Amino acid sequence: MYLPKSFENLVNNLTILPGIGEKTAERYVYALYEKEYDEVENLSKSLIEFKKNIKNCSICGCLSDFDICEICSSEDRDKSTICIVEDSKSVFFIERTNKYKGYYHVLNGLISPIEGINPEDLNIESLVKDRINKGIKEIIIALNPSIEGEVTSLYIQKILEKFDVKVSRLSYGIPMGSDIEYLDPIMISKAWDDRKIIS
Amino acid sequence: MYLPKSFENLVNNLTILPGIGEKTAERYVYALYEKEYDEVENLSKSLIEFKKNIKNCSICGCLSDFDICEICSSEDRDKSTICIVEDSKSVFFIERTNKYKGYYHVLNGLISPIEGINPEDLNIESLVKDRINKGIKEIIIALNPSIEGEVTSLYIQKILEKFDVKVSRLSYGIPMGSDIEYLDPIMISKAWDDRKIIS
Repeated sequence: MYLPKSFENLVNNLTILPGIGEKTAERYVYALYEKEYDEVENLSKSLIEFKKNIKNCSICGCLSDFDICEICSSEDRDKSTICIVEDSKSVFFIERTNKYKGYYHVLNGLISPIEGINPEDLNIESLVKDRINKGIKEIIIALNPSIEGEVTSLYIQKILEKFDVKVSRLSYGIPMGSDIEYLDPIMISKAWDDRKIIS
Repeated sequence: MYLPKSFENLVNNLTILPGIGEKTAERYVYALYEKEYDEVENLSKSLIEFKKNIKNCSICGCLSDFDICEICSSEDRDKSTICIVEDSKSVFFIERTNKYKGYYHVLNGLISPIEGINPEDLNIESLVKDRINKGIKEIIIALNPSIEGEVTSLYIQKILEKFDVKVSRLSYGIPMGSDIEYLDPIMISKAWDDRKIIS
């Protein structure tokens, strides 16, 4: 197949994106050809900047450009609550609802015996060891309402039993099997108000 | 909205790709987070390499990493034919069929009075001025079978009348309104064999 080398390389490298085959990658390359040099340079730079800077916050585990994320380093938030979520996507989504002003704890996964994901593979230990102090009054579990979410929720509920802290989970206003970040913010908001104390 | 800066920048820069909105861009960014540093660095570098190197061949107008493209600088091709196409996509597609061994001339557009594209906006002048010499026996017009393709084909046929050269166009094995690069290579191949002398 005849293609200029720089063209072919770019097509191949674009196929690392999810769902992008050769045909779509080629379409992107023709589009990039039409773009200004600056626009493509900005894209190129932002890829490297992202990859160099992004990390997991050493406190909550959320994606951040800093060792301690902006939420964990903020003094303006409600220090009495921690919201437990599956991943950073959930944090960014919940932040958009403007509903919650406490801190987060990102598990970066859910317990899944089928996929061989055990509690020790998740960011759970530091929650129990470092984050639950006298100031914490409530821990809100906001996991996707799937089997894995339920199992993980039960596990966390169990290990939190020995602490004098209220544990709640989002109410089932959320339809089973859905993804938290694709729901209507109003629905999230309602589920927040309606959360149910579970221990 | 709370998002790490490097994350947000990458999302914004990815939306320069055609058909990519914020949601899809975010999905790409999460996927890029999971990739190895090297893979993302390669993508970043190949964007710049492409943008720095790619240009239009000074002879045929096709996209190339060199001032003169690999086809135009090859001595192994059939020097008696030039195939006229709308864009570089068509060249790369026809090359894949392995049907044609002559040279190309890329118009980089089609005449379209509605869109205000006139013959002088296209890469036509150099065809007539520099490329038609005694060695050229046949010029094959392989434009998309659309109204614009037909108009452009007629225009080129007209200006080639004064030259002692056979002019052909691909036969209508090709369904009207389709895009050349989405057709079955066998169909292209048949249309090639079946091409019709028009002047």
